[in-house]
Amino acid sequence: MNLILLSKNDFIEDTGRVRIQDHRSAHILKVNKSSVGDELRVGLINGKLGCGRITHVEEGKIEIDVVLDREPPAPLQLTLIFAMVRPRVFKRVLTQVTAMGIKKIVVVNSFRVEKSFWKSPVLEKESLNKYLIRGLEQGQDTIVPEVLIRPLFKPFVEDELPDIVKSTHSFVAHPYTSEPCPYNIGSPVTLAVGPEGGFIPYEVKKLIECGFSAVHLGERTLHVESAISGLISRLM
Amino acid sequence: MNLILLSKNDFIEDTGRVRIQDHRSAHILKVNKSSVGDELRVGLINGKLGCGRITHVEEGKIEIDVVLDREPPAPLQLTLIFAMVRPRVFKRVLTQVTAMGIKKIVVVNSFRVEKSFWKSPVLEKESLNKYLIRGLEQGQDTIVPEVLIRPLFKPFVEDELPDIVKSTHSFVAHPYTSEPCPYNIGSPVTLAVGPEGGFIPYEVKKLIECGFSAVHLGERTLHVESAISGLISRLM
Repeated sequence: MNLILLSKNDFIEDTGRVRIQDHRSAHILKVNKSSVGDELRVGLINGKLGCGRITHVEEGKIEIDVVLDREPPAPLQLTLIFAMVRPRVFKRVLTQVTAMGIKKIVVVNSFRVEKSFWKSPVLEKESLNKYLIRGLEQGQDTIVPEVLIRPLFKPFVEDELPDIVKSTHSFVAHPYTSEPCPYNIGSPVTLAVGPEGGFIPYEVKKLIECGFSAVHLGERTLHVESAISGLISRLM
Repeated sequence: MNLILLSKNDFIEDTGRVRIQDHRSAHILKVNKSSVGDELRVGLINGKLGCGRITHVEEGKIEIDVVLDREPPAPLQLTLIFAMVRPRVFKRVLTQVTAMGIKKIVVVNSFRVEKSFWKSPVLEKESLNKYLIRGLEQGQDTIVPEVLIRPLFKPFVEDELPDIVKSTHSFVAHPYTSEPCPYNIGSPVTLAVGPEGGFIPYEVKKLIECGFSAVHLGERTLHVESAISGLISRLM
């Protein structure tokens, strides 16, 4: 936890002091081994970053005096669309791309996605939130990304995607194209990443009709996590 | 498993036929659900890629007729040096960078590395080999990377590193520098990645003395896996 994220409810009314007693206080005491007087990096969810000083510790409960005075880092101007993956991989991808600063994430279907993945509890709101917060803590950011879950490919691409790609450069990762992924685009991007083995030709065709360019990241088949972080770091 | 990797011992003497009965045959039968007549992508460890056709299946034992006729993909011209990480993360990093095509990997110490990590069985030869092979299967490659384990930072940097960096552009990922990581270097690279939070100033200084430039990948703190795949995809 590189940052302690606070919500408005943590504040003792009308003060700059918070009181917490949950996994965060446990982490501060047991992992960081912090105590009264120590300083911590803190942030308000969807608000500013700042500094906290521990004023009181009692039976796992912590009070911290908080000053929030810095804007969070600028969002990455990239909308990520990726095909649903195995739930345990999904958690890592969500955390990772949140840590990288992405603020709009769309999880879509693809022919090669196992149907059972869509029934996983990782897609429930509470679970999504857990891994988004973990990503913000990792990346030292406060702005919670928007996540859209779209288990139907065609209506998403036809009805919603045109608005998303407007005024962006849009790329679909496609292992079977001759065009390497470009570098350092310098303007907003929409990036679509299929399942391992890629989107099927029909899906790629639909994305190309919507303005996407098909690009590859070398001739090797990468795991979806490597592919996503590689593509993002190359494009942005 | 995108590729079935074979060793010379798998071949029935002086023929183009292999006989396997281990996790590979189990995978072919249970996960791929392949049977007699089906074709598979195969490769010889440190040799060529090709195609195999299943000729016989019996009690978990498989015979495959193999034609090896293609060179594996060109190695990535990047030597990766990274600080030892938590063993379960180490496995994923090793597999991931092997899948990306890196052929020389050095695992080094850093002040911020937990000492206990160096005692982990993941660093034993058999374990290293397991995750390297997994990476080759993922990336559809045959050439096993060389892995150097260097639990002493100073002698490694002073005695071995000068030869490694010779004729390469060398970069150290350093969160506290103003220089962003460059794109698409187009020539051989040596990349050093510290633990989360980075190498300490003394270590960065030693690397800079050895010709490294300190670069960052944005103001967010990334997990080592994201940072490594991001840096590689950006530089190469």
